[in-house]
Amino acid sequence: MREEFETLAPCSANHVPLSPISFLKRAAQVYGKRPAVTYGPVTRDWAGFASRCRAVAAGLARLGLGRGDTVAVLSPNTPALFELHFAVPLCGAVLNTINIRLEPETVAYILRHSDSRLVICDTALAPVLQAAFALNRQDLPVIEIVDEVAGHSATRIGAPYETLAESAPCDWTLPDDEHQALALNYTSGTTGKPKGVVYHHRGAYLMAMGTVAGWGLPQHPTYLSVVPMFHCNGWNHPWAMAIVGGHMIFTRDALPEKLWAAIASHRVTHLGAAPIVMQMLVESPHAPATPFSPRIKALTAGAPPPPSVLERASALGLDVMQVYGLTETYGHISQCLWQEEWSDLPPARQAAMQAMQGVAFPMVEDLRVVDRKTGLDVPADGLTQGEIAVRGNTVMSGYYKDATATARAFRDGWFWSGDAAVVHPDGYVQIRDRLKDVIISGGENISSVEVEAALHRHPAVQVAAVVARPHSRWGEAPCAFVELRADMQASEAEIIAFCRDRIAHFKAPRTVVFQTLPKTATGKIQKYLLREAAKALGEQS
Amino acid sequence: MREEFETLAPCSANHVPLSPISFLKRAAQVYGKRPAVTYGPVTRDWAGFASRCRAVAAGLARLGLGRGDTVAVLSPNTPALFELHFAVPLCGAVLNTINIRLEPETVAYILRHSDSRLVICDTALAPVLQAAFALNRQDLPVIEIVDEVAGHSATRIGAPYETLAESAPCDWTLPDDEHQALALNYTSGTTGKPKGVVYHHRGAYLMAMGTVAGWGLPQHPTYLSVVPMFHCNGWNHPWAMAIVGGHMIFTRDALPEKLWAAIASHRVTHLGAAPIVMQMLVESPHAPATPFSPRIKALTAGAPPPPSVLERASALGLDVMQVYGLTETYGHISQCLWQEEWSDLPPARQAAMQAMQGVAFPMVEDLRVVDRKTGLDVPADGLTQGEIAVRGNTVMSGYYKDATATARAFRDGWFWSGDAAVVHPDGYVQIRDRLKDVIISGGENISSVEVEAALHRHPAVQVAAVVARPHSRWGEAPCAFVELRADMQASEAEIIAFCRDRIAHFKAPRTVVFQTLPKTATGKIQKYLLREAAKALGEQS
Repeated sequence: MREEFETLAPCSANHVPLSPISFLKRAAQVYGKRPAVTYGPVTRDWAGFASRCRAVAAGLARLGLGRGDTVAVLSPNTPALFELHFAVPLCGAVLNTINIRLEPETVAYILRHSDSRLVICDTALAPVLQAAFALNRQDLPVIEIVDEVAGHSATRIGAPYETLAESAPCDWTLPDDEHQALALNYTSGTTGKPKGVVYHHRGAYLMAMGTVAGWGLPQHPTYLSVVPMFHCNGWNHPWAMAIVGGHMIFTRDALPEKLWAAIASHRVTHLGAAPIVMQMLVESPHAPATPFSPRIKALTAGAPPPPSVLERASALGLDVMQVYGLTETYGHISQCLWQEEWSDLPPARQAAMQAMQGVAFPMVEDLRVVDRKTGLDVPADGLTQGEIAVRGNTVMSGYYKDATATARAFRDGWFWSGDAAVVHPDGYVQIRDRLKDVIISGGENISSVEVEAALHRHPAVQVAAVVARPHSRWGEAPCAFVELRADMQASEAEIIAFCRDRIAHFKAPRTVVFQTLPKTATGKIQKYLLREAAKALGEQS
Repeated sequence: MREEFETLAPCSANHVPLSPISFLKRAAQVYGKRPAVTYGPVTRDWAGFASRCRAVAAGLARLGLGRGDTVAVLSPNTPALFELHFAVPLCGAVLNTINIRLEPETVAYILRHSDSRLVICDTALAPVLQAAFALNRQDLPVIEIVDEVAGHSATRIGAPYETLAESAPCDWTLPDDEHQALALNYTSGTTGKPKGVVYHHRGAYLMAMGTVAGWGLPQHPTYLSVVPMFHCNGWNHPWAMAIVGGHMIFTRDALPEKLWAAIASHRVTHLGAAPIVMQMLVESPHAPATPFSPRIKALTAGAPPPPSVLERASALGLDVMQVYGLTETYGHISQCLWQEEWSDLPPARQAAMQAMQGVAFPMVEDLRVVDRKTGLDVPADGLTQGEIAVRGNTVMSGYYKDATATARAFRDGWFWSGDAAVVHPDGYVQIRDRLKDVIISGGENISSVEVEAALHRHPAVQVAAVVARPHSRWGEAPCAFVELRADMQASEAEIIAFCRDRIAHFKAPRTVVFQTLPKTATGKIQKYLLREAAKALGEQS
């Protein structure tokens, strides 16, 4: 009877708040003597790694940091940043990893907005941090990570990180509530101010568990750390490694020769990387002459690598799987799971299949593609576009100190991705465009991504971006902004004709503007400025 | 700042109750066309399987079953029982799988105590159910599973299960609260009445996820269903299969020839089985002549199989891993993870390593071996015994309608297993005995299991059990009860001498009683009766 079941209240024996801290505690016991991390000549086992995390946590607590306090970090991927993924939550505080490619103005904004109480800064980032402090006219306490493997000497911008690591290790402590904030990740939006995405302990626990299950991570993977840990905490992979007793290999820089050397000497089994890194890797002269064996499982996110890159990756022994997600979803929420029957397809068709964003990871509750007008799922016809909407425990708690943006993101009980996508008949999702970048011409959706892909095949085009320009008859028409390669030329008419030969005529640009494209500090094209420029050109007819 | 983080309240976009129902929903979408279940000539894919689960749930709801209502099931492992693991929770009710080897008296007790409102019964169990109804002088509504693959015809004890499966599928519904009861499993205790162990949705979700991560289950395992689903819901493996799109193979009976035929024809990759089934499997004349390839991952729980069985299993292509757990912990909480250096040991040493209960699964928060007097962990010396204590989200909610037993099990914020164990220097736990079976003689702990193992090596001994007999000088002394093989004989002095040749003298029995041993309906020896008998023999001197 219902009431008899409901008298069984949770107690400390059978209810533990979900937190990735538990994974580290277990790893120290179960995988104690197995390698956790290697960087240059230094290898630490899980027992030693966990001791250092507990020492750093104790050191942070001694500095007065605790529940709800934000600790900012400016560092490339190093063992110290890996340790901080456990040490900061262990002292109850919130980890705010800042993109190290940002300009001082944005770093200054993030330090202010996040209410950070301490900055842990790699020596190489000291100048950016000092510039940010100058802009804010306010310093914060600083701890300096001096990377001796990289040959750095202390700048004395702050106390050395190693003094924290020499503290007496703290006890294992979990948050009182699994919804307690764990991390704060600022989105590198292309418009406006970056927004602070809040993760909680429960979400990180489930993201890490779901990644192990969804990616099929075995016990003891050797994982090459390439995805920056300031992007969604490296897709939460640092926490997942503790579940399976993985071995994290660090190279600090994502230079292809360093990566290939690390892959070979440590026999890497798994990695994740942006498509551009994947491309550099497979096109590098340091790539091995024969396929790497056993084959390496690689995840990539963002614009799918071109077919030629995927083919070459496969020939080198890399099994690349496309994943999709956002900062707001702790990283990947979908994956392009390989279907056995694809193995019989020609390479170009295989590459097309691999370019899909695929199906939901196990920790995702619902992943839909919705017609925003009707609120219904789009048909699984591979053609009808809708917006990707998500529900699940690995959706952010919200934007820090931005109730308006939080409410907008969570309309109607879903998180709205802002990505336009189709669903194929096999249920696989494929992104077409950012929703705001879709051009609606004569009632037809035109994917700016598709038009840009056609433009990029033109030999004179260095980089191109396509936005909507008002059109008297069609509503909107594609307008291309093109940056030409040095010493190369092309006319507007020639570019338009080139595109009409390759994509449907209504999708080809009706305007081509030659100029240097506006970009953010991290190299993203600022389409909102181009949209304004296209509007300023006036209505076409 | 803490208060800014704490304004971010969970909403339906970012908070979903943890439930294994979510795994099935995703499996239907992501693995829709892949096989979920095969039994005889019938195979169903995950889309079809999920539809049937939803139909059965709708059928149950139509019968008036909902939140907090208990549905009892008497069935061997069949696809119907697999479906009920999702269908019953999906309609909000609680699944009470009853051990099919129990005598009618205990079945009657469980039906009464569990407040079951419906019984779903396989044709073969109809006589037991009818006897239980007669004992209770009360019938319950019955649904009959008619196993046509097994050649059964309906007895009309109740409406056929297939009419439920023909209902219009219900919508996907999750519990309001992840702590809502999901399953009720009665322990087959050797003393007193069985106790009803309550599982909740959160626990089953985490158990299934942790099993995938801890066992390293890949995508699409082919899993042979051998562990009875009335034991801890088959170690929660039915739910885990939905996470990875596994293929469950059913044989109904665990006959070695059927199991080997299924392993070969479906290319089984994973299975779990009791040691006795493992032994029957490897000793069967139907075992393959050459090692099965690729090798099969097998879990076994309970008393570790003898070294000869492990050696033979390995030669047949089975990688057997010992796991340990209790009904109260949803099944396995520890596993004897293989250490690479063991591969260099001689087979007998390897078997000894494989006999350990090992280290915690990822979903277990704490697994300790505690000296109950001091409350401290025993030293990791492989010698000092303590009691295994556990904390974590996969510890039962409590015993149904038994607040006293629940409070006793959860003393001091831990679940006390009642198992005496040691910790080896590498951190691996090894069970020595049930705590209440340990004999304390002259201050030394004697494991009844160890003495019994020595007795079992005597050619005339069919089965033996050892308990404590009061002793004037040593406090307690081992007393053996021995059932001899038909047509074989042995004297007390001969048996004692045989043991003294093989184990420390103080561990050898000081009394041997020849008799048929008292056993439960499921074949467990009732040691509490032997303890009474030993006490009745009077104090030894």
